[in-house]
Amino acid sequence: MSSSDVLIHLHQKALNLLHEDATKIEKLIEVQMENLTTRQCPLYEEVLDTQIYGFSREIDFAIRAGLVAEGVGKEIISKLERNLAQLYEALEK
Amino acid sequence: MSSSDVLIHLHQKALNLLHEDATKIEKLIEVQMENLTTRQCPLYEEVLDTQIYGFSREIDFAIRAGLVAEGVGKEIISKLERNLAQLYEALEK
Repeated sequence: MSSSDVLIHLHQKALNLLHEDATKIEKLIEVQMENLTTRQCPLYEEVLDTQIYGFSREIDFAIRAGLVAEGVGKEIISKLERNLAQLYEALEK
Repeated sequence: MSSSDVLIHLHQKALNLLHEDATKIEKLIEVQMENLTTRQCPLYEEVLDTQIYGFSREIDFAIRAGLVAEGVGKEIISKLERNLAQLYEALEK
């Protein structure tokens, strides 16, 4: 592999990992949204906040390590934060 | 640069970033240890726990992305956790 192939492979791998992690948190948020209507389980706001914080550290590291463009990383985390904000908004109703 | 040069550069950069982040948390722990004797500031156990958690997510990502060997990553986090355990032990005295 040429050096640019190696870089593309690493960048793609990093991006895939981040998307996988984001999807896991999204699922958590979805489950919490469902719980809002069914009330079968308690809500774990703190767990979600912690997950998002940990994920933001992953994104930040990936950006600093030069694996993911800053704009891309920030967009992934913004999307999660918007979902979370919707959940919290729904909680307050 | 050859592909192996690119990889070495990326691995070194990732390792440097992790060591920098570990040093920041170590300084935080040291400050807290000093506060134990001077009691000038409140102790922020929760802040430290959160920092270590976020850092462990960084390390985990770096390992999964293939930037840092698993043993190296785990050793960095273990060292911090040992320091933190010492702080908590001192707290209980």
